[in-house]
Amino acid sequence: MSSGLMIGRFQPFHNGHLKLAHQILDECEELIIAVGSSQFNFTFSNPFTAGERIYFIHNSLVESKIDLSKVYILPILNLENNAIWIQHLRSMLPKFDSIYSGNKFVQELVSSGSETCVVHSPVFHNKSHCNGTNIRMNIVMNKEWRDFVPNAVHKTILDLDGVKRIKVLFETQKDGIGEIRQYPEVK
Amino acid sequence: MSSGLMIGRFQPFHNGHLKLAHQILDECEELIIAVGSSQFNFTFSNPFTAGERIYFIHNSLVESKIDLSKVYILPILNLENNAIWIQHLRSMLPKFDSIYSGNKFVQELVSSGSETCVVHSPVFHNKSHCNGTNIRMNIVMNKEWRDFVPNAVHKTILDLDGVKRIKVLFETQKDGIGEIRQYPEVK
Amino acid sequence: MSSGLMIGRFQPFHNGHLKLAHQILDECEELIIAVGSSQFNFTFSNPFTAGERIYFIHNSLVESKIDLSKVYILPILNLENNAIWIQHLRSMLPKFDSIYSGNKFVQELVSSGSETCVVHSPVFHNKSHCNGTNIRMNIVMNKEWRDFVPNAVHKTILDLDGVKRIKVLFETQKDGIGEIRQYPEVK
Amino acid sequence: MSSGLMIGRFQPFHNGHLKLAHQILDECEELIIAVGSSQFNFTFSNPFTAGERIYFIHNSLVESKIDLSKVYILPILNLENNAIWIQHLRSMLPKFDSIYSGNKFVQELVSSGSETCVVHSPVFHNKSHCNGTNIRMNIVMNKEWRDFVPNAVHKTILDLDGVKRIKVLFETQKDGIGEIRQYPEVK
Amino acid sequence: MSSGLMIGRFQPFHNGHLKLAHQILDECEELIIAVGSSQFNFTFSNPFTAGERIYFIHNSLVESKIDLSKVYILPILNLENNAIWIQHLRSMLPKFDSIYSGNKFVQELVSSGSETCVVHSPVFHNKSHCNGTNIRMNIVMNKEWRDFVPNAVHKTILDLDGVKRIKVLFETQKDGIGEIRQYPEVK
Amino acid sequence: MSSGLMIGRFQPFHNGHLKLAHQILDECEELIIAVGSSQFNFTFSNPFTAGERIYFIHNSLVESKIDLSKVYILPILNLENNAIWIQHLRSMLPKFDSIYSGNKFVQELVSSGSETCVVHSPVFHNKSHCNGTNIRMNIVMNKEWRDFVPNAVHKTILDLDGVKRIKVLFETQKDGIGEIRQYPEVK
Repeated sequence: MSSGLMIGRFQPFHNGHLKLAHQILDECEELIIAVGSSQFNFTFSNPFTAGERIYFIHNSLVESKIDLSKVYILPILNLENNAIWIQHLRSMLPKFDSIYSGNKFVQELVSSGSETCVVHSPVFHNKSHCNGTNIRMNIVMNKEWRDFVPNAVHKTILDLDGVKRIKVLFETQKDGIGEIRQYPEVK
Repeated sequence: MSSGLMIGRFQPFHNGHLKLAHQILDECEELIIAVGSSQFNFTFSNPFTAGERIYFIHNSLVESKIDLSKVYILPILNLENNAIWIQHLRSMLPKFDSIYSGNKFVQELVSSGSETCVVHSPVFHNKSHCNGTNIRMNIVMNKEWRDFVPNAVHKTILDLDGVKRIKVLFETQKDGIGEIRQYPEVK
Repeated sequence: MSSGLMIGRFQPFHNGHLKLAHQILDECEELIIAVGSSQFNFTFSNPFTAGERIYFIHNSLVESKIDLSKVYILPILNLENNAIWIQHLRSMLPKFDSIYSGNKFVQELVSSGSETCVVHSPVFHNKSHCNGTNIRMNIVMNKEWRDFVPNAVHKTILDLDGVKRIKVLFETQKDGIGEIRQYPEVK
Repeated sequence: MSSGLMIGRFQPFHNGHLKLAHQILDECEELIIAVGSSQFNFTFSNPFTAGERIYFIHNSLVESKIDLSKVYILPILNLENNAIWIQHLRSMLPKFDSIYSGNKFVQELVSSGSETCVVHSPVFHNKSHCNGTNIRMNIVMNKEWRDFVPNAVHKTILDLDGVKRIKVLFETQKDGIGEIRQYPEVK
Repeated sequence: MSSGLMIGRFQPFHNGHLKLAHQILDECEELIIAVGSSQFNFTFSNPFTAGERIYFIHNSLVESKIDLSKVYILPILNLENNAIWIQHLRSMLPKFDSIYSGNKFVQELVSSGSETCVVHSPVFHNKSHCNGTNIRMNIVMNKEWRDFVPNAVHKTILDLDGVKRIKVLFETQKDGIGEIRQYPEVK
Repeated sequence: MSSGLMIGRFQPFHNGHLKLAHQILDECEELIIAVGSSQFNFTFSNPFTAGERIYFIHNSLVESKIDLSKVYILPILNLENNAIWIQHLRSMLPKFDSIYSGNKFVQELVSSGSETCVVHSPVFHNKSHCNGTNIRMNIVMNKEWRDFVPNAVHKTILDLDGVKRIKVLFETQKDGIGEIRQYPEVK
């Protein structure tokens, strides 16, 4: 059974991700969605918890009529040792034959190991608006973002009071170096 | 939407686990299966990787006609700090209202926190044969184990050459203190 | 018994912190001072060890006639998982009812959990000079800093040869990205 | 200023510990109490959290009329690397000149480093009843334990429903290898 | 260039290890000696630090006239995730083609991965006396051990006052479960 | 026996490092080369694995006619707790008497501990071209770098397809904050 893997932080899961999910299911019998940086949350770069992101994705796929019996949605911890990244994925995920990624770093990691895994380019990669950072910045600036995400994501962000969360995280972390974890201490 | 959680190491997923999954879906709208000790593998107590265990469970549920759009199967890392165990679960899983567990330790952890989560007792808990340790020992002793696990688990263990794996792990770790992680070093 | 918590890195403990300690003891029966980022030291952002910072604070309170039988001064490790930050504090500290913090991030973390803890604003928060980063920069630039800290802190920094330490850390880390841990390696 | 250090897990703090605290304050100007294994809790060997244990000790000293301005009560994480244990203590605690311990392992670690720290023997060490493991077992067996601990500890254990906690931990972990961390999973 | 790997904890390095080193250099152009459990020390099972063990081995090889330009002696940390053990070794060591080990667990780990590495059996494996545990027990019991180790190891253990160290570790840890890390705390 | 230590990340090992190795062997009987940040690899700042770097260094020394029986080349993990850095080195390395470093931070760390270790300045430190960052940037820009590294390093980088690796890492990480670990995820 062929199985295709896509990997992201999904902060949040957006329409570009959803299109890639459909592409993989057109080309493979199974889809694995790995939610990276799963240990991080409540930072501007990673506002949502692993549990919230998995909930987003699950419901977006259901809403999009994808048959969940063909899908795995699983969290992945980041490792410091990039050289064993592929094997770390293999130990934490069901078997996969191909990775869908336009990232040359992924291609480098795969080709430098003893892996036989194929790297495919996503068809709809990097469309300008469908980008997690843009969507979070649009939320901060009160700009349009609803059309860039599945309805299930939009609804859940509202239910979680996620707009306020993202604004607070931006405001309290903007002086810093952004991506770096920020701790809630008195300066 | 009500959601029920069950937690195990699933080494391997067996018919008692499957019955509990059915019970939860009879009583809740959603089922979350958390795969504990997910960082461990290739020890006698934890022979299968997180990815393999998730594959077992997914296919057992499909085989058992469970609608996967109502189910989350997710790995959980163990923590040293038990006092924050429930909140750790909350951050890594979608929202849940109740935990199905006959374990008094779980009840103690839940009741000692600020949690409002309900703990339910499984109906089919602790039937004698359906116990991961017994099943692994039966595999070692060439005794009956096929009837204690779903067909999908039986087939996958054979496909993975899992009988040999469990026997080797038993043989190379039996002198030691068992559950403790064993390293593949020359003595 | 009511108990109020204040949290900081205390690099170093300054007069603004001391005023907040007095405010909390006016409003609560007990004061807990949590020393964050306790695992870091000998960086420009965190020049002093946890032990040194606790010594600073203890002696500043004694000097300021605060009754130590009402006070806890305790180190806290940073966590990657912000979503469980409050429960992590609860497991490592005695019971507290309120957190004194002007930081909206703290308010967000508290309100997004199942916590009933109250967040109070410090009265004397964020006075311009009483800020750890400013004080460390003033030490580097040979500017005034003595009046911004309790005598006990001033004396201890001198005893520890802390002025030289801060200058060396600034000089050897200034090319880098500052807050990031710096390792004493040949480039 | 001379400063004496005592180290324990304090599960719970008992009268032998209290006597040692008095001895140190008779012989030194300051007392540092380091609460080891602080990251563990809700196991039979370590039933109480670091915060609870610090609360025990603080209130036992207050009750015993010890002047808290001469005392530090601080948590310590265990390290895997024993060879740097003394320096780890030095980085996390205020300066100390002597360690009060009857344990030869402590003496070995101190003498094998470049330390000039003195190791003193406690006068009241190892009296038969005043032993954390015995006290926890007596609690499990409904035997006498009240006279072995300060009133403040007795009262707090009751307030925390600690007798039930210890019994549940004993009952759910007794089949295992005891000290090893136990996870609240379905078998 | 062919390269053979041997792995051990080397507590201490003994004559059986030395014979295996010679065997590998007879059959391969390069020898890699990986010192496992390198993060542990000052326990009865792992009395010597990584640095001490590397010093032992280096000097035993020099004494045995082995050309060090063909040898790498390197520490390895243990991992919890056995499934990526081989790749972890690959990232931390120079390239190797074969592993010399009589341990079936090693064979299992190698054969279950995507590795093409060959596992060879040591010729002189498991001779009764040449076994680290036996040698440490003989040291405790004042029995013969000098003939089981290279002179360089014997001399270094004496220089380090290692006989006393091993006896103290045995005495202070014997009540416990041995291999488990022991902390120097008051009971 | 006198022993001198040099510490670096060696990304890559260059002629300045080699000169320092010769200087130390002129002044001491033994040389220890500690490879820092050994847990990092496949980032632009740390493109090569610990194993690859150790292979570089070993072969550069052999090529340069250094007697390897006088040399230790060993990986070191970075620690968060700088205050125990020297003792961490002591536990992971054979005994050393002096550190060769022009870095004031190293001098600060040594002088603030209870260490008696001497810090020597390298004679050939900080020559403009012989700098790991410059060499990696020159590789990215197709500028001269061959003359700055030993032949063994040049050859091995080509064998590993290291030029492509460094270019890919630069290209995929340049938008970020550089030194920070980069994960191979879809944005």
